[in-house]
Amino acid sequence: MLELYHAEPGANSMKPMICLKEKRLDFLSHYVDLLAFEQHAPEFVAINPNGQVPVLIHDGAVITESTVINEYLDEVFPQTSLRPADPVARANMRIWSKFVDEYFCPALSMIGWHVRIRQTAKSIDKERFEKLLERIPLEEQRQKWATIGGDSFTEEQLADSRRRLVVSAWRMENLLLAGPWLAGETYSLADLNTYSMAVALPRLMPESVSPEKTPRLLDWLARMNARPAVKAALAMTRRDPKTGKRLDIPVTAS
Amino acid sequence: MLELYHAEPGANSMKPMICLKEKRLDFLSHYVDLLAFEQHAPEFVAINPNGQVPVLIHDGAVITESTVINEYLDEVFPQTSLRPADPVARANMRIWSKFVDEYFCPALSMIGWHVRIRQTAKSIDKERFEKLLERIPLEEQRQKWATIGGDSFTEEQLADSRRRLVVSAWRMENLLLAGPWLAGETYSLADLNTYSMAVALPRLMPESVSPEKTPRLLDWLARMNARPAVKAALAMTRRDPKTGKRLDIPVTAS
Repeated sequence: MLELYHAEPGANSMKPMICLKEKRLDFLSHYVDLLAFEQHAPEFVAINPNGQVPVLIHDGAVITESTVINEYLDEVFPQTSLRPADPVARANMRIWSKFVDEYFCPALSMIGWHVRIRQTAKSIDKERFEKLLERIPLEEQRQKWATIGGDSFTEEQLADSRRRLVVSAWRMENLLLAGPWLAGETYSLADLNTYSMAVALPRLMPESVSPEKTPRLLDWLARMNARPAVKAALAMTRRDPKTGKRLDIPVTAS
Repeated sequence: MLELYHAEPGANSMKPMICLKEKRLDFLSHYVDLLAFEQHAPEFVAINPNGQVPVLIHDGAVITESTVINEYLDEVFPQTSLRPADPVARANMRIWSKFVDEYFCPALSMIGWHVRIRQTAKSIDKERFEKLLERIPLEEQRQKWATIGGDSFTEEQLADSRRRLVVSAWRMENLLLAGPWLAGETYSLADLNTYSMAVALPRLMPESVSPEKTPRLLDWLARMNARPAVKAALAMTRRDPKTGKRLDIPVTAS
């Protein structure tokens, strides 16, 4: 049996959600409400000691890290193969996915935390917030929450993240010169690992991501948006897109 | 034909060096002298636009990123398989290698730069140093060199890196509770991707890495030191271990 612990269809949670949908695999969806700090609750930390989503459970085995989860899924369920057969293209898929993990995603995450998560942190009373901080298992995550609950990131840090987003967009555009997909000729994990990061770019940085400046990126995004697996993953939201409030609608497996 | 551009047998350069030796593959060794800034020379940037080692060239295809290079080598040359056959153990191998890349290595790197590379940066005259900075392709690398050539990292940053090294050692010890190797029962890329980072720990942090506190880590290190492939990679040094000066001895392929 497959189970996925995930948050909203965005950021790292969305990567295995798209992958599972591409492969038409049934799975049990466990929604973890990040804004209610469920990822740091003892029940969840017992599953992933890092207190982070997503987590895949396959017949009892716990797999963490969204990029690793997706390679695992492709290895164990080879139907609808999502890794290029050519080893060089496969290496390019991994190089790009690594870039997304180490560079693109952290930059986007800082902006997202500053703009959105900050409101949540600020709305919690100080005493409760201190208690919530205490149970965060990773020091780095605790520092991040403390920063966002305090004065937030500096203008310099935010500007550097915005610069990195421009670099990320430019690198995507450059890769798409060589082929229709990020690892070349074949749609692959490189693409689905990037979707949830890239989807916000046209809105976040219209001066850098536009039909004039990044036509290939936008064309790629349109092709990604049209994929039934992407649509199905996006439909697994539990929040009202307008109010951001949690909707208590049970979402079925697939 | 296989060619490897690499620096000394340490840090990320050493990862594919051990891998190639484990697989007994012949390769042409191209030594890139990092302290002479050869990694930023136009000839090298033409090969890897990021100006970083190691780089593998296989029949003309350029593969970067040491962790990706090693998976590529294991895929293309399956003799002496270095990835566990069990997909869960293989996922654990990737999760640990990712941790080394994103957490352990950057922490060690900051300490290494502060302690060793700083001397080199300080020994260069200011005008030449500015010129060298200009040709560094990655903004992040340029910032790092500017930092090390200036006031270096702050005490707070260095203390945080030392804390991360303790976390890394503790995580290794914890993994080695579950099996003799970092991904479980089988020697794998998880081990050889970690060796060059872990080898300095007993000397760097005797208070945290010791027979009393980390017996499993030290036992693992002794088993790694005894491997012929590790010895062969270590023998590929081009610097006098005492003076640090470059020795112009041509090193043969294998």
